[in-house]
Amino acid sequence: MAAVLRGSRSLLGKWHNHVASVQVSRSMASKTQVGFIGLGNMGNPMAKNLIKHGYPVIATDIFPESCKELQELGAQILDTPADVADKADRIITMLPSSPNVIDVYTGSNGILKKVKKGSLLIDSSTIDPAVSKEMAVAAEKMGAVFMDAPVSGGVGAATSGKLTFMVGGAEEEFTAAKELLSCMGANVMYCGQVGTGQAAKICNNMLLAIGMIGTAETMNLGIRLGLDPKLLAKILNMSSGRCWSSDTYNPVPGVMEGVPSANNYQGGFGTTLMAKDLGLAQNTATNTKTSVPLGSLAHQIYRMMCARGYASKDFSSVFQFLREEEGQ
Amino acid sequence: MAAVLRGSRSLLGKWHNHVASVQVSRSMASKTQVGFIGLGNMGNPMAKNLIKHGYPVIATDIFPESCKELQELGAQILDTPADVADKADRIITMLPSSPNVIDVYTGSNGILKKVKKGSLLIDSSTIDPAVSKEMAVAAEKMGAVFMDAPVSGGVGAATSGKLTFMVGGAEEEFTAAKELLSCMGANVMYCGQVGTGQAAKICNNMLLAIGMIGTAETMNLGIRLGLDPKLLAKILNMSSGRCWSSDTYNPVPGVMEGVPSANNYQGGFGTTLMAKDLGLAQNTATNTKTSVPLGSLAHQIYRMMCARGYASKDFSSVFQFLREEEGQ
Amino acid sequence: MAAVLRGSRSLLGKWHNHVASVQVSRSMASKTQVGFIGLGNMGNPMAKNLIKHGYPVIATDIFPESCKELQELGAQILDTPADVADKADRIITMLPSSPNVIDVYTGSNGILKKVKKGSLLIDSSTIDPAVSKEMAVAAEKMGAVFMDAPVSGGVGAATSGKLTFMVGGAEEEFTAAKELLSCMGANVMYCGQVGTGQAAKICNNMLLAIGMIGTAETMNLGIRLGLDPKLLAKILNMSSGRCWSSDTYNPVPGVMEGVPSANNYQGGFGTTLMAKDLGLAQNTATNTKTSVPLGSLAHQIYRMMCARGYASKDFSSVFQFLREEEGQ
Amino acid sequence: MAAVLRGSRSLLGKWHNHVASVQVSRSMASKTQVGFIGLGNMGNPMAKNLIKHGYPVIATDIFPESCKELQELGAQILDTPADVADKADRIITMLPSSPNVIDVYTGSNGILKKVKKGSLLIDSSTIDPAVSKEMAVAAEKMGAVFMDAPVSGGVGAATSGKLTFMVGGAEEEFTAAKELLSCMGANVMYCGQVGTGQAAKICNNMLLAIGMIGTAETMNLGIRLGLDPKLLAKILNMSSGRCWSSDTYNPVPGVMEGVPSANNYQGGFGTTLMAKDLGLAQNTATNTKTSVPLGSLAHQIYRMMCARGYASKDFSSVFQFLREEEGQ
Repeated sequence: MAAVLRGSRSLLGKWHNHVASVQVSRSMASKTQVGFIGLGNMGNPMAKNLIKHGYPVIATDIFPESCKELQELGAQILDTPADVADKADRIITMLPSSPNVIDVYTGSNGILKKVKKGSLLIDSSTIDPAVSKEMAVAAEKMGAVFMDAPVSGGVGAATSGKLTFMVGGAEEEFTAAKELLSCMGANVMYCGQVGTGQAAKICNNMLLAIGMIGTAETMNLGIRLGLDPKLLAKILNMSSGRCWSSDTYNPVPGVMEGVPSANNYQGGFGTTLMAKDLGLAQNTATNTKTSVPLGSLAHQIYRMMCARGYASKDFSSVFQFLREEEGQ
Repeated sequence: MAAVLRGSRSLLGKWHNHVASVQVSRSMASKTQVGFIGLGNMGNPMAKNLIKHGYPVIATDIFPESCKELQELGAQILDTPADVADKADRIITMLPSSPNVIDVYTGSNGILKKVKKGSLLIDSSTIDPAVSKEMAVAAEKMGAVFMDAPVSGGVGAATSGKLTFMVGGAEEEFTAAKELLSCMGANVMYCGQVGTGQAAKICNNMLLAIGMIGTAETMNLGIRLGLDPKLLAKILNMSSGRCWSSDTYNPVPGVMEGVPSANNYQGGFGTTLMAKDLGLAQNTATNTKTSVPLGSLAHQIYRMMCARGYASKDFSSVFQFLREEEGQ
Repeated sequence: MAAVLRGSRSLLGKWHNHVASVQVSRSMASKTQVGFIGLGNMGNPMAKNLIKHGYPVIATDIFPESCKELQELGAQILDTPADVADKADRIITMLPSSPNVIDVYTGSNGILKKVKKGSLLIDSSTIDPAVSKEMAVAAEKMGAVFMDAPVSGGVGAATSGKLTFMVGGAEEEFTAAKELLSCMGANVMYCGQVGTGQAAKICNNMLLAIGMIGTAETMNLGIRLGLDPKLLAKILNMSSGRCWSSDTYNPVPGVMEGVPSANNYQGGFGTTLMAKDLGLAQNTATNTKTSVPLGSLAHQIYRMMCARGYASKDFSSVFQFLREEEGQ
Repeated sequence: MAAVLRGSRSLLGKWHNHVASVQVSRSMASKTQVGFIGLGNMGNPMAKNLIKHGYPVIATDIFPESCKELQELGAQILDTPADVADKADRIITMLPSSPNVIDVYTGSNGILKKVKKGSLLIDSSTIDPAVSKEMAVAAEKMGAVFMDAPVSGGVGAATSGKLTFMVGGAEEEFTAAKELLSCMGANVMYCGQVGTGQAAKICNNMLLAIGMIGTAETMNLGIRLGLDPKLLAKILNMSSGRCWSSDTYNPVPGVMEGVPSANNYQGGFGTTLMAKDLGLAQNTATNTKTSVPLGSLAHQIYRMMCARGYASKDFSSVFQFLREEEGQ
């Protein structure tokens, strides 16, 4: 895949200079129309933040009702991704999974059917980096530039414009991408070639899942051994056991306030979403022949939780899942 | 066990008042002799710090050569733990594992053979909390007080007096224990009843092991996916994947300086010691019927590493263990 | 431990000759009284089979009501293990776990308080082999012989006298033990020195648990991939995936008749008992520094199942546990 | 995918009747030319067996030297899969992995470029069942029939014509497929719709891997606990721990003869191949949201082994991998 990518790039070298000059004009064209495809829980507040920053938004979603709120805020709503690509040369996509991305870009009504030469296409979905690379190759064939820019931070961060974007793609395009992404996020990190944004996101979430399950196991064991949970959290957090799940998002009810464990594991980051991201991590590990024993087991545990009724609870509910039920 | 402990305590209630008064005089008796048993890599610098703080030390070790350095610093060296207990009413023990502790306390030449009533016995070994509880019961029968006070921090922290002590035992004895432990450590944490010091230590190290293996897997996967390791560490450390192993003790050579990964995994905390602590975690989890899937797998991975030649390398060498060898 | 055992044996060499002669007379004393301690679900039918074979039984149990049925069949019921040992020189014990065994043998009313020199003590409990070895040393000090003889096969096999006994202990005592055990079992296997009976039992059950969970995962995956479960079982059973759990005790409802999966996972071998045996396997693995990654994960999975309401279901219900719930 | 498949089938219903009649003539056309693509370690002896049974073979392989031996036996060698499809209406493919299959079928010189209407295309590669389904859809569009028919049994079975074929595809085509496959295998099993042959193969190998690692762990633990390995194997094999890896392919040197463990783990089924199959199992499990905790860990263990120098050893060498090295 990488070889193919490099090959096609060198073949398209001459054309690339042309894109570079187009890019400049695109970058100068700030505050001209921006396309937005995918108005779900995350896409909706993200598109609103673009509007707040003065960008005219042209949007579409397969569920027309998702578009109403944005339409009332002045966005123009079109029927298909192809229609959006026909009008805007900067497009952001925010979709649930790889097949949706493939369809929105390369489907019969997809972006690439009508994309303008020199367009900047930014995908903020969390998907397999191999798919990001395929989309980049397909976009390049049409004279467009594709970047992957998945986010960390949930609906709250999307609403407040405090997302973190991890961006992969040609470095010379990063400035143009950052101009838009900064309207929606507090951090915009350049990670490297196409797919590395996804890679960074997937890596972070795999380590997050491991840390969360590890924290849940550890807190549960400590409580069984007679330790007060608040005290144990304090000791861990000043020691080498410290991690984000122990000091910022502790999974044990009563240890911290303002986290899902304090609210019956409602809100936050759903177990089913974590299971999906761990599936991506597993796929990339398998494809690159990388050993990820804890990551793999974390995936299986979140998968089991989905099967046992925890699908929509926050992923910190693994503490509840592991803890023995009363009366046993 | 717990029931037995409670039972014997109430039976010994009257006697306990007597101990309390003895304790006061002991606490006032600062700078009188302190016993120290176990002069290994950790015990040696710990005992030296007691001497530095002006305490006359009476010591013993099964390896006589271990005692020489301390003897030159003015410590009195005796033959057996019983002999030490005959002379000192405050004794610290620092031993490799549970069987050694059982032997040093309850063996034929053990502390309890000659322990003085009201003595304070502090065990800084890392052992099974169930053994700590047994020792406490045995000590109480002889009119002495036993506390568990395992440490975190390695030989370096022991030398510089910067250890962290996690202390379990009767709360009214904590002040007396802290007076001594403060000579050897920067933090002295009270954790609860006897055994909770061990519990806190074991819990921390289990989560540490999980975080370290998780970090190693994640960094390896990220590198395979094309990410620069320093950049990946930076992203993790500002995100929810952050943990002590990613931000303070990164296992990937070249990411940080002054850590074992920068020195071919020499020094630090040996894989064999981590495997031992994870074995303790596993035992306590099994005994309390607690699910610790990641902790259990971490144990198995460190056990495999011991079998594959990593026993004496720092435990962050799991990165090297998981990473595919060149040329394959 | 082994060294200690060998040491004490050589010290007791002279005495051992004496035991040997006693042993002969004991073996000849067939159909004289046999002690039986522990009349639970397994012990009760086992003791009955001894009576059926013409042995006068002297029994005891901590729950007096457990003794009634046996008393009606002619057994003499005494108050304590010590009382039984005072009357019978061949005693079988069948108890739930290690602490019970320690208490029944070495407690204040235990067998060893009144055991006759030359007595044969056979423990059919499933416990830690290290405890078996301790009991053997303690028995030897009193001039008695201890053997471990755990069983495979459940209540049904106990009732029909079709148990398998795995026997550890001095080989010269095996004939005498087999005489009694053959009344209760179809197979009596000599495994080696004291503790190896337990070792064989624990090893078998660890591999059984791994095979069962593996079969459950595999059948579930195959069904999801569109295979008919009966056909998949047939293919596995004629291929290298074949195991006892796939061909004799298939966990998928509808594949076989006469197994717990055909009866809502009632009867059979309870999840909580499997979790206990896997805990023993884990302990022995930890103590011998043996890597058992799948055994360890199997333990954790059965422990999770106990916490999620599967404690009393047959251990093949792991298929149900792993299978995604309807409607998700 | 399934929906698409069903859709296209009903659209092509009329055409299918036509195929049925073609199929009859194809089946009657026995001993006419058969195409064979992929003459590696497995494909070579398979193609020879077709020749032995009197079939004229038309073959190709990307490595021309692989074709020489077959050419000497009378096979016609062509340049590309398209050329083969132009001449033969029954074609068997035997390729290393999914990308090769995709290329050989749908590439620019692929079978489908020149496939005759009504041709029967049988793929014996072990690949992702989702890819098999894609190939079936693509073949159907060209009026051809695709079946997946992966094998179990290695080079030895391929040479002696004793392979087992697990066949997925339209049931009415099975007779025609079986006619050819019977020349190369002793068992030809019909598994169901397209992809179920792969599913059966993957399921079997996942359970095989779990059983093998479980057997290796168990034998190692038993040996550490003092059991003779032959005795332990005997006990397991008459008990519920029995599995193919314990009774037919025991991984412990000295327990059985004629297996790789008796020959320094040479020959047999390479660790790297097992790791590949477990990767397929992992992918299908992830895609179908199926929990496979032991299968997943088995995958990781074989992946670790590949990284530690075991890639080309038989997969039973996991016993050696887990066993602690001498002198530690």
